Amino acid sequence: MSQGNLRAKRSGAQAYRRSHHDRPRQGKSGTGASDATSVTLYGWHTVKAALENPNRRIRRLLATENAMRRLVDEGIPCEIKPELVRPDAIARRLSADAVHNGILAEADALPSLELEDIPPAGMVLLLDQITDPHNVGAIMRVAAAFDVAAVITTARHSPQASGVLAKSASGALESVPMVAVQNLAQAMNILRAQGYFVLGLDGAAEGELGQKNWRIPLALVLGAEGKGMRQRTKETCDALARLHLPGKMQTLNVSNAAALALYITSSRTTL
Amino acid sequence: MSQGNLRAKRSGAQAYRRSHHDRPRQGKSGTGASDATSVTLYGWHTVKAALENPNRRIRRLLATENAMRRLVDEGIPCEIKPELVRPDAIARRLSADAVHNGILAEADALPSLELEDIPPAGMVLLLDQITDPHNVGAIMRVAAAFDVAAVITTARHSPQASGVLAKSASGALESVPMVAVQNLAQAMNILRAQGYFVLGLDGAAEGELGQKNWRIPLALVLGAEGKGMRQRTKETCDALARLHLPGKMQTLNVSNAAALALYITSSRTTL
Repeated sequence: MSQGNLRAKRSGAQAYRRSHHDRPRQGKSGTGASDATSVTLYGWHTVKAALENPNRRIRRLLATENAMRRLVDEGIPCEIKPELVRPDAIARRLSADAVHNGILAEADALPSLELEDIPPAGMVLLLDQITDPHNVGAIMRVAAAFDVAAVITTARHSPQASGVLAKSASGALESVPMVAVQNLAQAMNILRAQGYFVLGLDGAAEGELGQKNWRIPLALVLGAEGKGMRQRTKETCDALARLHLPGKMQTLNVSNAAALALYITSSRTTL
Repeated sequence: MSQGNLRAKRSGAQAYRRSHHDRPRQGKSGTGASDATSVTLYGWHTVKAALENPNRRIRRLLATENAMRRLVDEGIPCEIKPELVRPDAIARRLSADAVHNGILAEADALPSLELEDIPPAGMVLLLDQITDPHNVGAIMRVAAAFDVAAVITTARHSPQASGVLAKSASGALESVPMVAVQNLAQAMNILRAQGYFVLGLDGAAEGELGQKNWRIPLALVLGAEGKGMRQRTKETCDALARLHLPGKMQTLNVSNAAALALYITSSRTTL
């Protein structure tokens, strides 16, 4: 298994124990998101969390008069001077329905992380080609609420940790490392070798998630809505389980499924 | 308490036991959504569920060649002949990021429902000025998965049961009645008089939702993200409780909070 295949990008405070000098550089097989990739962050909670993350490099900060006052009132540290702008100067850079709260930052993407750096403790989430940035952002937020150690995504068919995803994550990008891998099944095997039990959420599984105790470290795998996990992903799990839903409608938005799965497993885990 | 103040609109299969003749008409104090209000529905699951709902009147149906084939293959009943269009004829009518799956329907809004028509059994959800249509749609979907009897929203500061909301609900609008009321506190009192226990989800509450048994019929009240419930709403609850989140981040997307709250209460309810 080559290191190149597992080239990953990292984000989040936990990801910064290494010095800048030994950050992995982006290889040919990489995700296209090198350390120098610029991302757009907007919305109060998202930009506030980025400003408060000492490992997030902000290149440019645009703020309306109201947002500027709020930065001062709340004592938010700004490594660079915010540029005072009118709301439409921010709105013009975003889609029509974006809620920006008068603040936008251009920042560097957070540096990369290797899978092997994830501590074998607690829980990680793996997302199998979940493409919608709102959903991945909401999942990041759920992950932060449930103290998930890392969220692992596929380098292809996953949204970038920027814009809509960052807004939906509402600051969670700064606290939960996000790792993009070329091959999810390989990543699952690496996590297993590190001691993780790999559990896939699958609507067609026989067993119910809430009827068993699960041991940690636990790697929980979620597939895309509708399609679910890919066949190879499913086959690489140690076990499959489904959510019990009492209603007629048997599917949920994937971030809601993630929230329920994390709640259930975190209240039913043993060491 | 005047009937006018409680004029409500209804949707969902359960809402259609009355004949067309005794549908309430829209009063002056109504929500602005009369039975004749036209709504836009797009996306496969959303339009499919509408076509399969005998109580949903479809006025116009646009479908691409692929969607047309899928309608035939899956044997979906179409009360009107679909118009064959190119994908961009649908895309032009929607925002740039809308995923329409090649199908769009113009339909009548579902007819109105009175609060008193909600059966005093199981659970209902009340949403206190939750404005984001993605969130309300995802909550509708969660409600359908947990067999919620109705979702009650404020007539003001709530999105219309159309477009983005309908898409996010992924068909759930057709099975869960949505009731818009002028005064949420009054609605809570009416539900209480019908036997409901009214429980508000509040991050600042002392008690945890998962540490108590709740009796049904149960009315669960959710406030907007950040702001939470309004003061009067909070004061009108029989009890307040919070979600226990183990991580540092103590807020969730409101649809995720709804999913967790419904899971926890539905597994901890007694008659």
